[in-house]
Amino acid sequence: MDLRLALVGCGNVGRAFIALVAAKEAELRERYDLRLRFTGGATRTAGGWIADEGIAAAELAALTWPGAAWQPDAAPGSRAFEGDGLAFIAACPTDIVIELTTLNPLTGEPALSHIRAALEAGRHVVTANKGPIAHAYRELRELAQARGVQLRFESTVMDGTPIFNLAEFSLPATSITGVRGPLNSTSNYVLGEMARGATLEEALAGAQRGGFAEANPNYDLEGWDAAVKVTVLANVLMDAGLRPDEVAREGLGADAMRAAHAALAPGETLKQMAQARRGEDGRIAATVALVALPPRDVFAQLVPGETALRLEADTMGELTLIEGAGGPEQTAFGVLADVIAIARAIGA
Amino acid sequence: MDLRLALVGCGNVGRAFIALVAAKEAELRERYDLRLRFTGGATRTAGGWIADEGIAAAELAALTWPGAAWQPDAAPGSRAFEGDGLAFIAACPTDIVIELTTLNPLTGEPALSHIRAALEAGRHVVTANKGPIAHAYRELRELAQARGVQLRFESTVMDGTPIFNLAEFSLPATSITGVRGPLNSTSNYVLGEMARGATLEEALAGAQRGGFAEANPNYDLEGWDAAVKVTVLANVLMDAGLRPDEVAREGLGADAMRAAHAALAPGETLKQMAQARRGEDGRIAATVALVALPPRDVFAQLVPGETALRLEADTMGELTLIEGAGGPEQTAFGVLADVIAIARAIGA
Repeated sequence: MDLRLALVGCGNVGRAFIALVAAKEAELRERYDLRLRFTGGATRTAGGWIADEGIAAAELAALTWPGAAWQPDAAPGSRAFEGDGLAFIAACPTDIVIELTTLNPLTGEPALSHIRAALEAGRHVVTANKGPIAHAYRELRELAQARGVQLRFESTVMDGTPIFNLAEFSLPATSITGVRGPLNSTSNYVLGEMARGATLEEALAGAQRGGFAEANPNYDLEGWDAAVKVTVLANVLMDAGLRPDEVAREGLGADAMRAAHAALAPGETLKQMAQARRGEDGRIAATVALVALPPRDVFAQLVPGETALRLEADTMGELTLIEGAGGPEQTAFGVLADVIAIARAIGA
Repeated sequence: MDLRLALVGCGNVGRAFIALVAAKEAELRERYDLRLRFTGGATRTAGGWIADEGIAAAELAALTWPGAAWQPDAAPGSRAFEGDGLAFIAACPTDIVIELTTLNPLTGEPALSHIRAALEAGRHVVTANKGPIAHAYRELRELAQARGVQLRFESTVMDGTPIFNLAEFSLPATSITGVRGPLNSTSNYVLGEMARGATLEEALAGAQRGGFAEANPNYDLEGWDAAVKVTVLANVLMDAGLRPDEVAREGLGADAMRAAHAALAPGETLKQMAQARRGEDGRIAATVALVALPPRDVFAQLVPGETALRLEADTMGELTLIEGAGGPEQTAFGVLADVIAIARAIGA
């Protein structure tokens, strides 16, 4: 099977994805009978390009784009593209739109509009952007079904750790009844540094220097990032129909973190934990809160960089996944896993 | 799709599987278009039965077998069957043989002969027995391929926790380069009780009363159980071609456990750990050993009943799975997951 890919957004994850496809080219052909070619890319800073016949990943990885504007000379059959993401989606011949733009997480834009346009045009969509899935999962799922295309988003939570693909392909005939985990890395890094004696400000500055905290940390510290993630989990795995603003965010923010840190008993570990659970009445309640974990709690033991999620399932009971180290390479793997899942679904 | 199932062996796991299929009957029909019927069962203690048209799970669950011999009157169209497992496999009309006999783990028998006979007869096979997979995986895999049937064994390690199905369906285009975990529950229960002040003998007696330790504990304490499990993991996930007796078992057994316990530094936790890893030279080395884990190691935090496995993968780095509580229900889930995987494969 030949599949054409178009990249909307191409930052660290996009570049890691191109490199991963290049590295796995032979394996994809031999194990999955799958040949992937890139027919276009669009970015805000380096513009875009379209190549009707497609470019192989290894060839694309060797070019200067997206570090610099597209040089048509360097890739025969290609042309530079001027225009925004929506114009690119309308113009680029592709089977799958890979949506990797940086986004406003409170609205999901512009990714939401990109995904909607791609699905309406009959393209499969893979995204690593959690905003559109948190804000509009049911609408997008119905649109994809109506158009007979796939919408996949493994990398929206815990990078490429198999969660949605695990639930769909490896936990058959199973109902997920709850999810729980320390879903916001920045908050938990800051709390970990505070436990080692740093002030909140020092810890936060370290996270920002490390590149994994936003310039405006309130999105992390006040629980919005975790609320968006737990909304995605609850809506996809438990069909909750939640909005991020319906997630109870309890006692969060910088002042609450300092107070909870000061009140911690010896041996306890403070974490910002997110959870969603189906109650006796069938309603799903989701919360993000600061929790003092006892010494032997698995979540208390996570080292910086590790993330974890516990699923509660009617068949398996509790199943916890821990990701050792997340980064663009792991996120890129989730995108590739989704592309392969699409190939399997349409080839079946 | 209609699939006929035949049970070879029907103890706790077999009964839990029948109950699970009964509970999930509507979901299997609606989500997977799958109707399962039992066409026979065979046990050493209660004999066997065959029903050419099959019996629904809910109906089978209501009968006295395998608590007592088969009563043909209670299930119209059925007959009692006399004979051993091989004779049953030859006689029972079925699509899938579910192999759940108790076995000699050092030889894999009689399960190995059952599986070989079923595959040769063109039946798909699902087993929860690790012995045959540890001792004869390549032979059985090739036999299944030659006959165009499936051989699945999710429940051989960590009950039904998705490991083999995770690797196959949810970690595509990935090479597993290492596995590591406290794979033997009995040893780790005993070590945990010793950490709380019990003698090895007291802890072992408790495990035997609890029903999860064998009458002869040396199979667990001397590392054979973990060696068999890590052989299965290495052979299936890493194509290692190992035999259980090629796994290095270092400093194990009751005396070594007492000595290592006495030598433990404050805060450390002693575990019997199994691992397999591909070395620089491409060779896979597997070991079972007593390891003193530091306080913040995730494996050190497991409570009794929890099991865990860490996969090292070229795409995802380290991915750790923790099963909260394992028992016949979880093992039965793994068997059902395998049955559904067979249905998907042959329906595709």
